[in-house]
Amino acid sequence: MPDIRTAVLDAATQARAASIDLRLLTRDRKDAALRAIADGLVSAIATIVAANERDVQRATESGTDPAIIDRLTLDAKRIEAIADAVRDVAALPDPVGDVVRGYRLPNGLEVKQVRVPLGVVGMIYEARPNVTVDAAALCLKSGNAALLRGSSSARETNLALVEVMRAVLVQQGLPENAITLVPGDSHEAVTHLMTARGLVDVLIPRGGASLIQSVVDGSTVPVIETGVGNCHVYIDDTADIDMAIDIIVNSKTQRVSVCNAAETLLVHEAIADRFVPAALVALAERGVTIHGDDAFAKYAAQVEIEFKPVTDTDWAAEYYSLDLAAGVVPSLDAAVGHIRTWSSGHTEAIVTGSQQAATRFVACVDAAAVMVNASTRFTDGGEFGFGAEIGISTQKLHARGPMGLPELTSTTFVVTGDGQVRS
Amino acid sequence: MPDIRTAVLDAATQARAASIDLRLLTRDRKDAALRAIADGLVSAIATIVAANERDVQRATESGTDPAIIDRLTLDAKRIEAIADAVRDVAALPDPVGDVVRGYRLPNGLEVKQVRVPLGVVGMIYEARPNVTVDAAALCLKSGNAALLRGSSSARETNLALVEVMRAVLVQQGLPENAITLVPGDSHEAVTHLMTARGLVDVLIPRGGASLIQSVVDGSTVPVIETGVGNCHVYIDDTADIDMAIDIIVNSKTQRVSVCNAAETLLVHEAIADRFVPAALVALAERGVTIHGDDAFAKYAAQVEIEFKPVTDTDWAAEYYSLDLAAGVVPSLDAAVGHIRTWSSGHTEAIVTGSQQAATRFVACVDAAAVMVNASTRFTDGGEFGFGAEIGISTQKLHARGPMGLPELTSTTFVVTGDGQVRS
Repeated sequence: MPDIRTAVLDAATQARAASIDLRLLTRDRKDAALRAIADGLVSAIATIVAANERDVQRATESGTDPAIIDRLTLDAKRIEAIADAVRDVAALPDPVGDVVRGYRLPNGLEVKQVRVPLGVVGMIYEARPNVTVDAAALCLKSGNAALLRGSSSARETNLALVEVMRAVLVQQGLPENAITLVPGDSHEAVTHLMTARGLVDVLIPRGGASLIQSVVDGSTVPVIETGVGNCHVYIDDTADIDMAIDIIVNSKTQRVSVCNAAETLLVHEAIADRFVPAALVALAERGVTIHGDDAFAKYAAQVEIEFKPVTDTDWAAEYYSLDLAAGVVPSLDAAVGHIRTWSSGHTEAIVTGSQQAATRFVACVDAAAVMVNASTRFTDGGEFGFGAEIGISTQKLHARGPMGLPELTSTTFVVTGDGQVRS
Repeated sequence: MPDIRTAVLDAATQARAASIDLRLLTRDRKDAALRAIADGLVSAIATIVAANERDVQRATESGTDPAIIDRLTLDAKRIEAIADAVRDVAALPDPVGDVVRGYRLPNGLEVKQVRVPLGVVGMIYEARPNVTVDAAALCLKSGNAALLRGSSSARETNLALVEVMRAVLVQQGLPENAITLVPGDSHEAVTHLMTARGLVDVLIPRGGASLIQSVVDGSTVPVIETGVGNCHVYIDDTADIDMAIDIIVNSKTQRVSVCNAAETLLVHEAIADRFVPAALVALAERGVTIHGDDAFAKYAAQVEIEFKPVTDTDWAAEYYSLDLAAGVVPSLDAAVGHIRTWSSGHTEAIVTGSQQAATRFVACVDAAAVMVNASTRFTDGGEFGFGAEIGISTQKLHARGPMGLPELTSTTFVVTGDGQVRS
């Protein structure tokens, strides 16, 4: 048995060496490599699909959930979509070299704060093999080496994808270790990746809450927490009823298995009589199960909708399903208090006709994104116009909310003088 | 004996509650409170000096290094200077509410990325009691609650300073728990602070390398690493000799006990004959001891300067003293390679007449700041015109280099619509 620790640290060391070369690449060379990667993936569709079929067969034999098998499966159409996404990344502006601040000091020194690559970016993620290519493309564009650790269920697919990308890098005269799959299939490999401080500059976990928590707890490498979303929609007393129903229905049901779906509905008591019965009917039509408080119990009985009593487990839940916790609150401040207690800091929404209420809600809740009269589903790099997204940060440091290419950079202060010294 | 864990977590919980109120304060109210704190400190000079004398006496009796006692000591003049620094913070712009990005999407949604306070900022620092007030003032200005853990040697001084500041907060109608000294004098209290994830939003350690390392290793709360500086000055073959001597002398000797002082001198072999003998004489005149390689040994013998052979310990050292590691390198790339091996990522300097060399050095070294033809001593929030500095980050995430008020904030995406939902 090979020494997993040595293998992982060797891979990280090689990625680090590659990252030094990546710092110097012009945008033209990076974009050319990305377009060649897109072409290479399309040319290799047969090989990739064959590798993927072996993963899918193994997953099927071991009785994996069909929804997960669907996420794992690649066909020609999905591979072409992945290649198109790489071409989209090539078309985005290069963040490296952007001047964040620039000014001249009284002593004549020129100060420029310039974006530079982070170095080595480690990704730890679950079944979807498209993340392997998306993350590699975003890292390459931002001048970072990518150390990729996907799900073991997608191992053969990921190996095939990375082999194609590395071959293109070599053809393009770029360091092949700019894109590396973490060796080893065991959890032990992840542990060594998480503690490779000094070799890996940042870890970005993407997946369920337990994956993210284990990375946060076990890493000495800095982590960017992503994607855990217990999102709330608060209907203020001055809300437009139809708008409020549209927004809660869209936030809850437009796509349920995503982090920016709503999990809790809070309603001001002064609008509850007018809003809740109609909302319950609209939500029930979409198959939503309500976990509500006593007030909701009363309204559910009025409109003869099935109903479960809400518990603290519900208030805390990210259902990722057609379930919705719901309660009536006496005031906006009570809604804010509830949200501050239970929120994961992802996205909170208010529906209101009052500018004052909107301002107070925005100032008081503490989240990556706050929606005023809009669906929670808009918290998304694509929707925000970033063109690509490496994840949605739910932490407060470095990046908060959808992360695009600039969030994959650090900065350096470049100070240019003609001999200045301090007196 | 009280339960230290409960006491620390209670203090953090109270700070968290205070931080919610701080989010809503206008700049006017924060600035008024800061000016009142400055006045309060001046009014309390007698009390503060008396408390400080007890700390100083205890430190003297336990045989503390006179340099540390000097840092610990406060007199009326120093307290007035601290108060003036608080007034300076009041005069700075408020980062909270600044719009970092703002645009309108095709669907009519208005997206604004707005600066918001981080929440609760924990500071862990060493002897200087001025940090207690500086940090509290910067946190208050940026809308954060400050949880302060100074050196136990400054305990009575810090208690007196915090008591004055909290009394002013109460007078001003602000939450007194916006400024809190971590209870307990033991290391155990620090451990509980470092693991109060969810209550404390960020920890900023300020002090020596061992303090910072212990906070990085022991914290589950996100940490911003500060201030460890193994800074290099590289003299390129095209450097102006006089400028090069001025810059290395200033970088090494202008103040030795600071993180932006130079610790290593690297010289291109093509300029060594002209530069090194004169530099050795200039450095020796300032009392600098050279730890050099074989080439430096030869030059030191020529000019009859005392000399020690360099070891890996020297290349790694942050001397904080009048010692300097020194070597001759065959090329700029060799200098970059040396720096990448030994640098702490704080500040690296090149002295060169070549634009091409400057560009390559800037692109290849990976540091918070890179100086071209200027002293390393300029990496400083005050010098950069930030007006105040909470520390110098040597990490790559969130903030890198001198941190001012904006670095004490996070952001929220505020998205405003009129009923938009996703289709």
